[in-house]
Amino acid sequence: MELMEAIRTRRSIRKYENRIVPEEMVQEILDAAMMAPSAGNAQPWQFVVVTDREILDSMQDLHPHLKMITQAPLGILICGDLSLEKFAGYWVQDCAAAMQNMLLATHAKGLGAVWTGIHPVGERVMAFRKLFNLPEHIAPLGFAPIGWPAQKLKTESRYREDRVHINKW
Amino acid sequence: MELMEAIRTRRSIRKYENRIVPEEMVQEILDAAMMAPSAGNAQPWQFVVVTDREILDSMQDLHPHLKMITQAPLGILICGDLSLEKFAGYWVQDCAAAMQNMLLATHAKGLGAVWTGIHPVGERVMAFRKLFNLPEHIAPLGFAPIGWPAQKLKTESRYREDRVHINKW
Repeated sequence: MELMEAIRTRRSIRKYENRIVPEEMVQEILDAAMMAPSAGNAQPWQFVVVTDREILDSMQDLHPHLKMITQAPLGILICGDLSLEKFAGYWVQDCAAAMQNMLLATHAKGLGAVWTGIHPVGERVMAFRKLFNLPEHIAPLGFAPIGWPAQKLKTESRYREDRVHINKW
Repeated sequence: MELMEAIRTRRSIRKYENRIVPEEMVQEILDAAMMAPSAGNAQPWQFVVVTDREILDSMQDLHPHLKMITQAPLGILICGDLSLEKFAGYWVQDCAAAMQNMLLATHAKGLGAVWTGIHPVGERVMAFRKLFNLPEHIAPLGFAPIGWPAQKLKTESRYREDRVHINKW
């Protein structure tokens, strides 16, 4: 899929077919995530790939917007690794860029995904920390259920002239 | 350019030809940025497009990694608009996703750019606030000098198996 088409047609997909995602695809999606830019090229990220049905099902109450996880064959948790940062505080942006690459790659492969935010909401952070037994220096940023789309969503441009300022505010 | 190729070959470009970037391209880059996902689809972002040579030149001392701005015909500042947030605190991730879309779109058009981080470093935030006279609710996230690349950089996969955890930490 062409880049601009991927960017323009990606939507949050919350309904999935009952069909697994091949392992090679998962690896390509992770490869896309890890190609993201990061402050000082520190690549301060870690990924937890969740395919275990019991774990996935148990996640539906972990987060207020994760009910659809019981239908998804796969979810990927992106975490910041604070021990890897070169410039403190940029891990959120670095991991968000990795997430965006991941969502675009997912879409280009015909898959669908949705970014559910964790950080900086404390109770969500604690819930993910506990479920995955994350060490202190590993900060859960966001989680994406992924699967074969069972819904089609139209897209339209979100371009807004009034958000663009030229040379000054 | 195909999506995975764009993701895999994008690099931070810090040397530019002495040539302007057409306005239509700038608009397409901004369109890509604004197609990013955001928490609650709040789209809590604002953009300052800087093409004024004097302003661009004045920015070289605004940030420790902005010396190259004197060679760039263009720079785009992405800001969070805190008055537009639906879910407080997610604007950083939302704007980072917009930045990543912008960098990919830039690269796919044959342009080069580099993400220079502002938030959360206080003195950088204050310097950008002051230069662009940003209102209190507008938070500068990052700035990207953009131009026609005068350097070629190789890319290699950043995929690391040891960053991938299956079903548990």
